[in-house]
Amino acid sequence: MPSPEPVTAALVVIGDEILSGRTKDVNIGTTADYCTELGIELREVRVVSDVEDEIIAAVNAVRARYTYVFTTGGIGPTHDDITADAVAKAFGVALPINAEARAMMEERWKQSGTEVNEARLRMARIPVGASLIANSVSAAPGFRIGNVHVMAGVPKIMQAMLEAIRPTLRGGDRIKSITLRCRVGEGTIGGPLGQIQQEFPDVKMGSYPQMGQSFVMTELVLRSADELRLAEAAARVREMVAEAHRAAGLSPEVEAY
Amino acid sequence: MPSPEPVTAALVVIGDEILSGRTKDVNIGTTADYCTELGIELREVRVVSDVEDEIIAAVNAVRARYTYVFTTGGIGPTHDDITADAVAKAFGVALPINAEARAMMEERWKQSGTEVNEARLRMARIPVGASLIANSVSAAPGFRIGNVHVMAGVPKIMQAMLEAIRPTLRGGDRIKSITLRCRVGEGTIGGPLGQIQQEFPDVKMGSYPQMGQSFVMTELVLRSADELRLAEAAARVREMVAEAHRAAGLSPEVEAY
Repeated sequence: MPSPEPVTAALVVIGDEILSGRTKDVNIGTTADYCTELGIELREVRVVSDVEDEIIAAVNAVRARYTYVFTTGGIGPTHDDITADAVAKAFGVALPINAEARAMMEERWKQSGTEVNEARLRMARIPVGASLIANSVSAAPGFRIGNVHVMAGVPKIMQAMLEAIRPTLRGGDRIKSITLRCRVGEGTIGGPLGQIQQEFPDVKMGSYPQMGQSFVMTELVLRSADELRLAEAAARVREMVAEAHRAAGLSPEVEAY
Repeated sequence: MPSPEPVTAALVVIGDEILSGRTKDVNIGTTADYCTELGIELREVRVVSDVEDEIIAAVNAVRARYTYVFTTGGIGPTHDDITADAVAKAFGVALPINAEARAMMEERWKQSGTEVNEARLRMARIPVGASLIANSVSAAPGFRIGNVHVMAGVPKIMQAMLEAIRPTLRGGDRIKSITLRCRVGEGTIGGPLGQIQQEFPDVKMGSYPQMGQSFVMTELVLRSADELRLAEAAARVREMVAEAHRAAGLSPEVEAY
């Protein structure tokens, strides 16, 4: 049975504050977890500065390659928020004030006594042909155009927008994983692990050293959409690690989860 | 007086574990802070998977554009560590066992009674023409070829390697910054801030909303290599924010640092 086409994604993080170190990004980790949960393979992330041509180039490069593109950052009311402008240009469409977006925001502003001004109305500019992404936190919406989902950079708002679009995304086969804890260094098991990997090209095996002051440990993570093959591969790796434990004078058990 | 040519950089983070969400990256923030400290402008970050063609494409794209390239991840002893292979291919050079790298590691292994095997010797494969980057933590070196610095993914080792290369990097004009705390939302000051930005094209003004349960706050960050222009711009923005505070019925002080 041939595997179904994988569902893939890229994330474009937009903002000088990430590149200067002033803000430490958390949206990459959130998006990675979200995609894994949905069976979407996040294949690439780019962090770009608040420069229109850079945003356009990044969005155009990834939207042609992946099922979905997510962007975070640059959709607020100030002059440095240029993501909507850049995405409209990437798609070659105009960026007028959107009546629905304006109504959403004006309703919220009326409740809070917030003045409608030109800066705030910048946030109602939506590319022609885009649909809105609801913002349950602060009303100013994101939008989806083609396969590109434009979201806020503030983590709380970005997470609310990911929840808003969840029902619209097609998930892929959920990747299952098994982690084995190996109590010797990865240099010791690297050779035999590579051999088992060759026998199981459909099970991705990653090796991640954990370093403490006084211990060596290696986490081996096996990932596959095929649960049976994953279990077979895990049994082989487990046996190999038990042998390595024995050879190192350790008890052979291998913790797995 | 014309500004000197800026010194620029890109970071390529290599690893499926970041894209799956299993590992939350911290090397982007570390590299961003490091570059800012040295007056190097980090212009772009790419996170790519453990796929040789993806690593080659990313490294080649950024090494042509920026003064320096840093990579993290994929230089360990296991089959999924393919960064050295990919970088050697990107430069079109061979990847033999390097005698100096081998000697460094064998000395350490002798002390710890660690066996020399094929997997561990993978870490001594260094592209022809590269120089080594010392690893004070676990001996296996990184390397520099052309403008590309290949470093480990484990944060502690990566940080040790950044320290090792620090004396070899040319810094640029250090960017100075002033942060002003504005106690009204960014929609309120977005218009006038944009006008001041137009008068000071040489001072980059960023606006970052801070959200709490019960407060609105906006941090305005002004950045420039020219201290005098920065001070002038900050004075103008401070005056504008004080006015916005007054208009909102707040005391006019503007905290700055």
